[in-house]
Amino acid sequence: MRNPTHAPFPLMKDEVDIVIPTIRTLDFLESWRPFFQPYHLIIVQDGDPSKTIKVPEGFDYDLYNRDDINRILGPKASCISYKESACRCFGFLISKKKYIYTIDDDCFVAKDPSGKEIDAVEQHIQNLITPSTPFFFNTLYDPYREGADFVRGYPFSMRSGVPTAVSHGLWLNIPDYDAPTQLVKPRERSTRYVDAVITIPKGTLYPMCGMNLAFDRELIGAAMYFGLLGDGQPFKRYDDMLAGWLSKVVCDHLGLGVKTGLPYIWHSKASDPFVNLKKEFNGLFWQEELIPFFQSVVLPKECTTAQQCYLELAKLVKENLASIDPYFIRLADAMVTWIEAWDEFNPPKPAA
Amino acid sequence: MRNPTHAPFPLMKDEVDIVIPTIRTLDFLESWRPFFQPYHLIIVQDGDPSKTIKVPEGFDYDLYNRDDINRILGPKASCISYKESACRCFGFLISKKKYIYTIDDDCFVAKDPSGKEIDAVEQHIQNLITPSTPFFFNTLYDPYREGADFVRGYPFSMRSGVPTAVSHGLWLNIPDYDAPTQLVKPRERSTRYVDAVITIPKGTLYPMCGMNLAFDRELIGAAMYFGLLGDGQPFKRYDDMLAGWLSKVVCDHLGLGVKTGLPYIWHSKASDPFVNLKKEFNGLFWQEELIPFFQSVVLPKECTTAQQCYLELAKLVKENLASIDPYFIRLADAMVTWIEAWDEFNPPKPAA
Repeated sequence: MRNPTHAPFPLMKDEVDIVIPTIRTLDFLESWRPFFQPYHLIIVQDGDPSKTIKVPEGFDYDLYNRDDINRILGPKASCISYKESACRCFGFLISKKKYIYTIDDDCFVAKDPSGKEIDAVEQHIQNLITPSTPFFFNTLYDPYREGADFVRGYPFSMRSGVPTAVSHGLWLNIPDYDAPTQLVKPRERSTRYVDAVITIPKGTLYPMCGMNLAFDRELIGAAMYFGLLGDGQPFKRYDDMLAGWLSKVVCDHLGLGVKTGLPYIWHSKASDPFVNLKKEFNGLFWQEELIPFFQSVVLPKECTTAQQCYLELAKLVKENLASIDPYFIRLADAMVTWIEAWDEFNPPKPAA
Repeated sequence: MRNPTHAPFPLMKDEVDIVIPTIRTLDFLESWRPFFQPYHLIIVQDGDPSKTIKVPEGFDYDLYNRDDINRILGPKASCISYKESACRCFGFLISKKKYIYTIDDDCFVAKDPSGKEIDAVEQHIQNLITPSTPFFFNTLYDPYREGADFVRGYPFSMRSGVPTAVSHGLWLNIPDYDAPTQLVKPRERSTRYVDAVITIPKGTLYPMCGMNLAFDRELIGAAMYFGLLGDGQPFKRYDDMLAGWLSKVVCDHLGLGVKTGLPYIWHSKASDPFVNLKKEFNGLFWQEELIPFFQSVVLPKECTTAQQCYLELAKLVKENLASIDPYFIRLADAMVTWIEAWDEFNPPKPAA
């Protein structure tokens, strides 16, 4: 497993879907043409389904609007958020590929310090096909990377690592700040290129951003639900955070790894901090209770698949979080619906 | 506490001791002259005390050889290792300063990617005077650094962080590999400058290297014992690892932070892998049991100082590790002697 030969990426193209939630013409794809054209795109159109989304020529894609989602999922479409980028998880559900890369439509190709354009998909896949090391921290960062290894004092029994389920990429230019921080630091830009990939240790939660994210659908797809947020719900702009807390709890329980760091994308513009503040309002309060709750969750050892773990989490959400707001009962129900839909579209593979 | 004004470093010079264990002429100090000259050095001479260690002119230092250690500590000198860089902790014990920076004598000034020489002491102090964030991972790394902050989804209640007790710096050129890895990869060099400082999350252990290390003596000095290793002992080259496991357990219990990353030093030469293999032999086996043991240790909440925590750990070492080797009984006894010596040289400050 260590320092594996870099898989020839043309061979990986049939194993990756790129999922893009959007409400507008996808001009940003021009920036990604050399990098995304080899892959299949799943475009999830949010908002008014009668609007036409233009996609530049030459890309291999399927586009689904709200009418498509309703038609395909039937009553289970109720678990897919409307007017929230959480709708992207519809793409996760219907994909048949092993790996998902999902990116926001205001994210462009970034350059490394040498000026070279960064192939974000390649780096994410590299992160996913090499193991993670969640049980002990390696001070020279990713030990599987060329030119690095495990340092003195790293137990040999832990050097095989564990399968990597999630690869969380970062952002140059506009950092992913909440509305209060945006208001206080309107001019702050992310300019530091940190040349590292890190396994987030077992037992540690992190704020997972959906802007530049990849994962192994087979390992963790069922727990990559972005929740019931957006239109008509009191919880907004926390879709990726929710998915991050829950998928990390599931990864920790199942012995899977989560990495963060490279690759960077170029995040072109900050969303309106006043609009964001209105959307985030409840989440800013609730996260103070939600995070300690998910930090303390212990899943029963009988849960051995992402689906089982996720259904258990739905139960715990209903039992423990309804006291914060009745919304969490609806969320828990949507989590169960999500798993029902997941199982319908992703039936267990017959034994070999 | 956030983004604190950079303390004027001339004012810090009276609060820092630089501790250097050595067996040879300290020519390496010429490289550090502009950076170390403002500070007081504590040189701990290892090996034959009749040998004369030359120190370049112009440095403010005290040098202690084995005869000095025996004279100053009396019978308690038994807890200070001989023929092992662990002897450096004698310097930690007798220092009267708030901060310690300790460095090996084969480490030189490194340059950042712009070619600028790195002031390792300044970066370590900066790490120590800004808080740590052990309870939740910040994906943009050190949130207190200029140009960075907490990302969206970071709970506001956790943004004050906790006091930082340890700053673990890294190495360019020769990486800190164990003997087997040295043998397998004799030519590997550490060339990647990762421009980051990271808090190691609560509950996660790491391989702490003593080559380029700083800490707050008042907060964690009593738990920075490098153990009874070296001459006459079956455990060698694990002095810093042992101190790292135990100090991290104590930091986690007391709510103190540990950072790793910047600053880099230039590690000039690898030690002999065959000699190292002989020295490391027992440790390579034992770490497989020791690390899981220290990962599972829970200290009683009655332990509220580093000293109390450390005495509790001594008890646990004696009770639980003697089955690995009777050596651990001697180690546990030396840990108790260390705390007795610590208390003698560092009596509690009278209440204000």
